Amino acid sequence: MCQKAARLGVKLVPHMKTPQSTEIGSWCKAAGVEVITTSSIKMARYFAEAGWRDITVAFPINLLEIAEINHMLDMGVDLKLFVVDTDVVALLGEQVSRPVQVLIELDAGYNRTGVDADDLNAVREVAAQIAAAEKVSLYGLYCHPGNTYHTNGIEEVRQIWATAIKKANFVRNALSQEFEGLKVRIGDTPGCTLVEDMTGVDEISAGNFIFYDLVMNYLDVCDESDIAVAMAVPVVARNESRRQITVHGGAVHFSKDHLFDEKEQKFFGEVVILEEGGWSSIIPGIKLTALSQEHGTLEVIDDELFSEIKVGDVLGILPIHSCLTANLMKSYTTLEGRHLPHLEQF
Amino acid sequence: MCQKAARLGVKLVPHMKTPQSTEIGSWCKAAGVEVITTSSIKMARYFAEAGWRDITVAFPINLLEIAEINHMLDMGVDLKLFVVDTDVVALLGEQVSRPVQVLIELDAGYNRTGVDADDLNAVREVAAQIAAAEKVSLYGLYCHPGNTYHTNGIEEVRQIWATAIKKANFVRNALSQEFEGLKVRIGDTPGCTLVEDMTGVDEISAGNFIFYDLVMNYLDVCDESDIAVAMAVPVVARNESRRQITVHGGAVHFSKDHLFDEKEQKFFGEVVILEEGGWSSIIPGIKLTALSQEHGTLEVIDDELFSEIKVGDVLGILPIHSCLTANLMKSYTTLEGRHLPHLEQF
Repeated sequence: MCQKAARLGVKLVPHMKTPQSTEIGSWCKAAGVEVITTSSIKMARYFAEAGWRDITVAFPINLLEIAEINHMLDMGVDLKLFVVDTDVVALLGEQVSRPVQVLIELDAGYNRTGVDADDLNAVREVAAQIAAAEKVSLYGLYCHPGNTYHTNGIEEVRQIWATAIKKANFVRNALSQEFEGLKVRIGDTPGCTLVEDMTGVDEISAGNFIFYDLVMNYLDVCDESDIAVAMAVPVVARNESRRQITVHGGAVHFSKDHLFDEKEQKFFGEVVILEEGGWSSIIPGIKLTALSQEHGTLEVIDDELFSEIKVGDVLGILPIHSCLTANLMKSYTTLEGRHLPHLEQF
Repeated sequence: MCQKAARLGVKLVPHMKTPQSTEIGSWCKAAGVEVITTSSIKMARYFAEAGWRDITVAFPINLLEIAEINHMLDMGVDLKLFVVDTDVVALLGEQVSRPVQVLIELDAGYNRTGVDADDLNAVREVAAQIAAAEKVSLYGLYCHPGNTYHTNGIEEVRQIWATAIKKANFVRNALSQEFEGLKVRIGDTPGCTLVEDMTGVDEISAGNFIFYDLVMNYLDVCDESDIAVAMAVPVVARNESRRQITVHGGAVHFSKDHLFDEKEQKFFGEVVILEEGGWSSIIPGIKLTALSQEHGTLEVIDDELFSEIKVGDVLGILPIHSCLTANLMKSYTTLEGRHLPHLEQF
């Protein structure tokens, strides 16, 4: 992703909500990344303590956290905050201890958060409030076109990005007389991976690409071999008559995100064989088909495969949604056996 | 639940997987509970360190954790383990440092784990292996009829329990010549709450009842007023045109368990107003209808209600599945403002 950003002349602001680890952050730094995104104030503080000084919190400001925001500004962190609401901008202006930059979040069709990019009056109201707030300045415009997660193929992802880019630049142009040099930042892993024409984009902000997962593989955003995390689960029981394997790996480890296979059967992960230095490709004929709190149930179609799996074995599972799985595990072991730090220990 | 157990003459062995807090455990102790259940070895150790000395780990033994099992036996914990597999019993017998009691997990139709209760040969094989293992003794038979979670009403729950009780006693009778005084333990919140005829049951083991939740309320297992946890979520944005409220409360807080309302619309929680000393009943016309990693989206049908909710407000959300929500939050504040300890800090 660093290479792609360099090739297209955009700045990569990776989202640390996926790894939540300062060491993985430092791998990004080694690859040339200077600025990062977090999904919470607490996560921003964790990375700030590890030395990061340009951190965007990609979530609408919660003024109940103003003390923590001010603490980071006092630490010298160039904190960038998201605004979507005029009242919050006014209150931020009153309560913030030092100058702070904000991005206006635009909604270009995902319909989650953000000011409607087509509603110039609404955008202008927020911008005017920013202009009126002495310590608040406008850095740029941000759009998360998360609807790319619900597409069928590359063309649809590119179409969604083309729309988001067009709408964000329409807003930038409309504001250009009062606000010079506004940056346009767009983020989501499908788009950052698949879109090649980033004309009109200054910065990209994705997180899932750091690990990828089965959702991204099913959307043809990544290859199976791009998936960079697997869960190790011990086999604790086998049921001969149902051809089921029970593993210690449940909803408290994987979350309940799922996909549907070609027969419209829900599943919660694919099985790989853990090997020295990595893992095998996905094993056909076996899937993680049910989760309760601690139990995972593997259904095995292949008789020979079933007979090979023993209680006490440790299998690998590729996660459906790596962000949620990593958030639940709060821990990583590298292939060399080293444990990585995680926000949870902060 | 303590009163019900006393009334029916069964021993309550509550499952701590739901609260995961030694202080909530101590509230159970104050109500007369002497023995508890946990879902993992790590959770057992946490409660052992808090003084509990009779702990059942309600999950098939994972022998990769034998060192930790032996450590707790050396601490003097009367650890009770689940067995479903002859080979594991044999290995446990070789590897365990001191005498340990086990329960054979029976499957009476839930089809998750356990030896098929109808397959007496299979049960006898496991029992024979226990008899042959010098340090392993058989305490009883356990059945988790989790299919009660997928029922329509009290009668179906009672029917499932009647079947489980009958099957477990069939096995107990078949083993009675070799094994005297075997206990029958049955567990799940719908059954423990709704079943009145517990003839043939010695012990009951449920966890969710400690908090209950919307799933239990939708199944008519509990009243809305029995739900004992609510999540406090700050309002961070409102969208006038879509009548949507954004809160800081997403999949990393609630998990993605959901229910369907009367219009078959998926939802992730109900809204209550937090008040001194508790919270209101469920507010009609507003529901948590979408979750991403950190964002929760409330859809508001009622115009007046929408106009009343402001950015900066803190709303309460009753969780769909309290076990998973509590597991993600890893923290509680009582109505008096006191923080409770949690396994996560162990």
